Amino acid sequence: MNKRRNKRSAVEISGPGAGARTNASYSIGVDLGGTNIKFGLVSADGKIVKRARIPTQAQTGPKPVLRRLINVVRRLMKGYPVRSIGIGAAGLIDHEHGVIRVPPNLPGWDGTPVKEILERALGIPCAVSNDVNCCALGELRFGAGVGRSDLFCLTLGTGVGGGIIANGKLVIGANGVAGEIGHTVIFPDGQICRCGSRGCLECYVGAEYIVQRAVARLRMQGPKLKFRSLIRRYTGNRLERVTPKIISRAAQHGDECAREVIEEVGYYVGLAVSNVVQLLDPGLVVIGGGVSGFGKPLLDAIRRTVEERVIKFPGRKLSIVLSTLGDDAGVLGASQLA
Amino acid sequence: MNKRRNKRSAVEISGPGAGARTNASYSIGVDLGGTNIKFGLVSADGKIVKRARIPTQAQTGPKPVLRRLINVVRRLMKGYPVRSIGIGAAGLIDHEHGVIRVPPNLPGWDGTPVKEILERALGIPCAVSNDVNCCALGELRFGAGVGRSDLFCLTLGTGVGGGIIANGKLVIGANGVAGEIGHTVIFPDGQICRCGSRGCLECYVGAEYIVQRAVARLRMQGPKLKFRSLIRRYTGNRLERVTPKIISRAAQHGDECAREVIEEVGYYVGLAVSNVVQLLDPGLVVIGGGVSGFGKPLLDAIRRTVEERVIKFPGRKLSIVLSTLGDDAGVLGASQLA
Repeated sequence: MNKRRNKRSAVEISGPGAGARTNASYSIGVDLGGTNIKFGLVSADGKIVKRARIPTQAQTGPKPVLRRLINVVRRLMKGYPVRSIGIGAAGLIDHEHGVIRVPPNLPGWDGTPVKEILERALGIPCAVSNDVNCCALGELRFGAGVGRSDLFCLTLGTGVGGGIIANGKLVIGANGVAGEIGHTVIFPDGQICRCGSRGCLECYVGAEYIVQRAVARLRMQGPKLKFRSLIRRYTGNRLERVTPKIISRAAQHGDECAREVIEEVGYYVGLAVSNVVQLLDPGLVVIGGGVSGFGKPLLDAIRRTVEERVIKFPGRKLSIVLSTLGDDAGVLGASQLA
Repeated sequence: MNKRRNKRSAVEISGPGAGARTNASYSIGVDLGGTNIKFGLVSADGKIVKRARIPTQAQTGPKPVLRRLINVVRRLMKGYPVRSIGIGAAGLIDHEHGVIRVPPNLPGWDGTPVKEILERALGIPCAVSNDVNCCALGELRFGAGVGRSDLFCLTLGTGVGGGIIANGKLVIGANGVAGEIGHTVIFPDGQICRCGSRGCLECYVGAEYIVQRAVARLRMQGPKLKFRSLIRRYTGNRLERVTPKIISRAAQHGDECAREVIEEVGYYVGLAVSNVVQLLDPGLVVIGGGVSGFGKPLLDAIRRTVEERVIKFPGRKLSIVLSTLGDDAGVLGASQLA
């Protein structure tokens, strides 16, 4: 009993009381991450009218996690006409059957029939997709992509992912793994990537690699510059504490090393985005994820690189923007899957 | 009169006589190239039942060329229930309006409203698309892609192009220029491309660059090897006569230089194809165009590179094959546009 109460208290639900509106239709979007599960009760016009968040506790395995997930969804649904639920998760998804395969951040979940379990428990249609695909769908329906039929959504974080919309629909590919921009090659002879290839974008702009490069730069600085960097000041000279956020803050305050790092990240991202633009001609590229918090300096560097690389012709439509949906993109998009 | 007869005699039409079958429906596919215009009367099951070919004579401008094109189409249609016509042409296409824009090989055609002119003249629906998109559609409907909903079609020739099918439909993009794999970057610091970027795939595997590299290799050979290469023998030691065909023939007869060149081309193409596979997960890549005549050694090198680069997981579906439709892919696909 005690244990149960503890679990309950870990749920934060916010929004109006049950049954506030019953004449419209709603859907549930769930962002199933390795650390937290985020929930949204989403109205037809893309408002998150109720939210919830619980710790994933992935180590407990799929069954207990899904039980808790279902409990939260039931509480969110109470009094609302909910027509469907969508789940976004990292990793390879069997879209047809709604099964999660080899998820990098959910050990032991390989083969979990999420769709089947949720449909049986909740009695509404369920669809499962990759988390970045959900972001792309969120941007299409309720974000920067409203009114468009093509876009590319790039998420920059620990991993680097992409979601493709073409002809108004999500492109999932023949194996359900389309969008892997993080493992497109920008330097064929570059560093070895954990995926087995070389010179993948993720090796240059994944959060940990950005930090590594910033630290390497600081270490290389001669004695004259050595104590000038704001990054050293913000971390109390303990370089193992450097994070993308600290680099961002330092750049905002004019730190040269931080600015150079962001400029470099923008160049690398720009190379990969140029290839996406040449291949898919999406007309719109939306950039989200934690590292997109670098903001305008990053965006400017990406735009400059793409501008230099992409074939020019009069009237070419191409916008590259930062996500305005931010953290909500995944939940909003998941709600639109089914 | 004489002039007219001459024009007629330039037309080669082959196939059964008019009215051979009237109970099925047919469509016309046209491949409008800079040198020749190829026509096909295509049955619903993808057989080219009648063919024609005329020289484009692009220098005469769009009006006379379209007049001759319409005459040939009328003769092909005679006695057959033809429901639509599709035109494939190089360059930027305004798909919505069926207008050709800035075609590289049809000087003076910028802005020609091909769809409008043909619909008025022929009284059947007309659609216009990029020639490589037509190849992709041809492969989907009647070639290696039958039964699939995703594929990527790569054409290797003077130019290097691509056509994308996702969710069963052609991806044309927001500006109608999707598929430009030839101008995706494989070496960010590589040679300057005529498109203004650097290190584009086309700078390494476009037909003329392949020849350049083969010639450079031959010139670099020391006196001992100097007269051994079959390429020198086949060209009578006049290296300005080297063509991809000669390189191919030399490789077939064991010439080391030719084999190395083909191996290298396969590596470069493989790098770009890996990026396509990571991004689009097409499940099938079909390789066509003149340079694909390098055949199995090229295909093997491409496959090897993609195998090394692409994320592996059990059961991954991915085939890389040479086009079996060959030259017909464009006409067959064009017939399916409308």
